[in-house]
Amino acid sequence: MSEPALDRAAMEAFLRREFPHAGFADGRLVLADYARGRCRVTLPLDERNIRPGPSVSGPAIMGLGDVAAWIALLSVIGPVPLAVTSSLHVVFLRPAGRADLACDCRTLRVGRRLAVMLAEVARSGDRAEVAHLTVTYAIPDGPR
Amino acid sequence: MSEPALDRAAMEAFLRREFPHAGFADGRLVLADYARGRCRVTLPLDERNIRPGPSVSGPAIMGLGDVAAWIALLSVIGPVPLAVTSSLHVVFLRPAGRADLACDCRTLRVGRRLAVMLAEVARSGDRAEVAHLTVTYAIPDGPR
Amino acid sequence: MSEPALDRAAMEAFLRREFPHAGFADGRLVLADYARGRCRVTLPLDERNIRPGPSVSGPAIMGLGDVAAWIALLSVIGPVPLAVTSSLHVVFLRPAGRADLACDCRTLRVGRRLAVMLAEVARSGDRAEVAHLTVTYAIPDGPR
Amino acid sequence: MSEPALDRAAMEAFLRREFPHAGFADGRLVLADYARGRCRVTLPLDERNIRPGPSVSGPAIMGLGDVAAWIALLSVIGPVPLAVTSSLHVVFLRPAGRADLACDCRTLRVGRRLAVMLAEVARSGDRAEVAHLTVTYAIPDGPR
Repeated sequence: MSEPALDRAAMEAFLRREFPHAGFADGRLVLADYARGRCRVTLPLDERNIRPGPSVSGPAIMGLGDVAAWIALLSVIGPVPLAVTSSLHVVFLRPAGRADLACDCRTLRVGRRLAVMLAEVARSGDRAEVAHLTVTYAIPDGPR
Repeated sequence: MSEPALDRAAMEAFLRREFPHAGFADGRLVLADYARGRCRVTLPLDERNIRPGPSVSGPAIMGLGDVAAWIALLSVIGPVPLAVTSSLHVVFLRPAGRADLACDCRTLRVGRRLAVMLAEVARSGDRAEVAHLTVTYAIPDGPR
Repeated sequence: MSEPALDRAAMEAFLRREFPHAGFADGRLVLADYARGRCRVTLPLDERNIRPGPSVSGPAIMGLGDVAAWIALLSVIGPVPLAVTSSLHVVFLRPAGRADLACDCRTLRVGRRLAVMLAEVARSGDRAEVAHLTVTYAIPDGPR
Repeated sequence: MSEPALDRAAMEAFLRREFPHAGFADGRLVLADYARGRCRVTLPLDERNIRPGPSVSGPAIMGLGDVAAWIALLSVIGPVPLAVTSSLHVVFLRPAGRADLACDCRTLRVGRRLAVMLAEVARSGDRAEVAHLTVTYAIPDGPR
């Protein structure tokens, strides 16, 4: 596999600079693995994300999948802050419960204008999927 | 149209009690309109939700649609905290920009075990849709 | 509302020429209403589409929504045969039963490269939705 | 892996009896592989499915994914003809072109009332995905 379009240190600096509230700066999200077209992002347990059940909330899981998809995309196309989510589909398969979550994401297709990523969320250390997401990003025109 | 299964004051108390971190208690979300099978929830501009663009983030919009769908559902079936999101689909139609957002939501179908809601997000005071969501909830068995 | 980019007779000729197997030539599909950004396509009852239930099959309903979305798009951008479905999401709300179906479709957003259409399927003469579809088309580059 | 809930011969007989128009009886669809919770269904090239491009049509691909999901589900729960598609999401990743297609499908989660299947469509003999589908089925109550 070829190298990512920006290396891991550059990606982490980019995330902290462009998305100061996304959670990477203060440990609410962690970039655990990273390669060209692939990444793992983890979401450590945070009581603010817990809903009745108890379980990690749906929006927290969707946010996790969305940011993982964005990182997987940028590992291929480089630092394009204005790549924006075009559509997202998620099915929730099992209750997440009160647990750290891990999202494994990979690109299914990176076109010139559209990219599609697959994101699978499970409890850390467990294989049973909690949520399965398909995320589409629109890539702006212009030199890259 | 018949009355909601729990009235507005009861719904607001329920939201604050069951979802203390969802944003209704501190004004990050506002239940602006409410009837049986319908609601409007607004998301006032909050810098923590802004991403490069600048624009309100996708996850903030998905969270808005998800909670509006949940309120529209509970207005029909009553206070069932364990009704959980089963799937969510969102398409982003236009940049939200830096604006207050309003989500108009209605039930498309409330079955015994599954319910489907439509949520349309626009800038407050504007008709052009920013995002269009279809949200499915699973309804647990048991007396209601 | 402005005029469609190709008029109704031109649209019908285009459908028969480019999509000889789609069903418009032999009455399996009917373009019942047509305006810029909107159309109604009907699917008369056909035993080949019936599945156990009995009910019109899911694939027949998805095909109906897909072609209606394509017509609504072309009513705005003109005859672009290579506009292709990029994604489709459908929720089935009620059994269709053994009935003629009607699909009302409109554009939610027609961008330069992507377009999103909403398609609502019901039994002919009935208002209760049988299926709710969100369809995205990719528009090829080039002069139009 | 445990045995399927109905064996391959029983599944093929069930398909021909309950879905005489689905295409298994006359070779328009082929059940190429089959195990508990998994199957491969192939769609041999058929000119009636070709659209401008030329490419196998979106509806033909959606129908392929839908029936594969249904077979994967029934391999787990047994012959329940009234299990019906509840939702379907598809993203089209690459043009299918004029080719035989193969759909590999597996269950992500089979609950008591809902089941979710993943279906990946590619050209026969090729690994690049043409379409990625997530299909949800509702399972009726009752003895099985």
